Amino acid sequence: MKLYDNATAPSPRRVRIFLAEKRLTLPAVQVDLRGGEQFTPAFRAMNPDCTVPVLALDSGAAITDVVAICRYIEELYPDPNLMGTDAEHRALIECWVRRIEWDGIYAIAEAFRNSAPGLERRALPGPLSLDQIPALAERGRRRVQHFYTWLDTRLADHRFVCGPEFTIADISALVTVDFSARAKLDPPAHLRQIARWYGEVSSRASAKA
Amino acid sequence: MKLYDNATAPSPRRVRIFLAEKRLTLPAVQVDLRGGEQFTPAFRAMNPDCTVPVLALDSGAAITDVVAICRYIEELYPDPNLMGTDAEHRALIECWVRRIEWDGIYAIAEAFRNSAPGLERRALPGPLSLDQIPALAERGRRRVQHFYTWLDTRLADHRFVCGPEFTIADISALVTVDFSARAKLDPPAHLRQIARWYGEVSSRASAKA
Repeated sequence: MKLYDNATAPSPRRVRIFLAEKRLTLPAVQVDLRGGEQFTPAFRAMNPDCTVPVLALDSGAAITDVVAICRYIEELYPDPNLMGTDAEHRALIECWVRRIEWDGIYAIAEAFRNSAPGLERRALPGPLSLDQIPALAERGRRRVQHFYTWLDTRLADHRFVCGPEFTIADISALVTVDFSARAKLDPPAHLRQIARWYGEVSSRASAKA
Repeated sequence: MKLYDNATAPSPRRVRIFLAEKRLTLPAVQVDLRGGEQFTPAFRAMNPDCTVPVLALDSGAAITDVVAICRYIEELYPDPNLMGTDAEHRALIECWVRRIEWDGIYAIAEAFRNSAPGLERRALPGPLSLDQIPALAERGRRRVQHFYTWLDTRLADHRFVCGPEFTIADISALVTVDFSARAKLDPPAHLRQIARWYGEVSSRASAKA
């Protein structure tokens, strides 16, 4: 196995933290996203979506989605459990992860990619060059406030996003909050539950990944 | 178990076809989306995202994501297999489903919800009222052509999306193509592989679900 990675992008960091929690180290290749390496024929042959992370398997297959990579790792290395211990638990964790992606990661990306200088034709990741839409940046800023509101409410009576155990949902939310700082969309300081939870999850050794 | 369903929305149809392939029938409740039932306090208490489908479990928990519902069903009723037979197969199918959602379902929704009369404040599903953005409708139309191009290429040497077996990826792509017709974004007729595949998957008994 080999991980196609990028040190500053949020999506591959979700996988790196997941691996760190499993105490796994994989051979990794840095993909030069600023230099456009994801658009080269060699990279496209592996992942036509032109995104990282990619987990290249010894079989020649490539897993090109964050959660699919984590699920594959979880099946091979079940301890510590990060994605649920039975069918119901796994389903509920998957719902939280999707919700964090939809309301958090995609909303921040919407705000960031539709306004950041240097991303003028990169309003979405992927092979298409798409113009920024200022109204979409504004929509993203509004949506991320909704994300913070429900996350804070959820954390009021749960130590971690899915309950008493640290899971992939916490990894996803941690990466989201750190990504938000780059877009100057940090959680409002009055949301004390997010602050309490962030203090705990960001001080785990895996958060350095 | 009880399925919160809607007969005309694309997302719950993915679950209904999945259940039909498993030869399962679940008690179902129709949610009146036009009448705004998804915004009532009773529905929000079950799913604060105000979306269908929802699979309400006997434990009191609610699974609110299409793929999480299908995965839960797959674990309980593994035959016929629709989500992969080993870790690698499952991971690759998950990637195809994500790609169909991202490039297909979300792109068509982007085009449709940002232009359809009657959806003026409903540019995204969920609890927020968001204005339509005409430039986003245009972007969605462009993105869905990209989806059709790669789907046709993929199907040139694969009977189904993931290979020789019908999977949840075919269900997702079939629902996407039928949804596209409502948005007047049907696949171009010259894409013969999509036409061949569509003829086969849409004539399965489950497609009536």
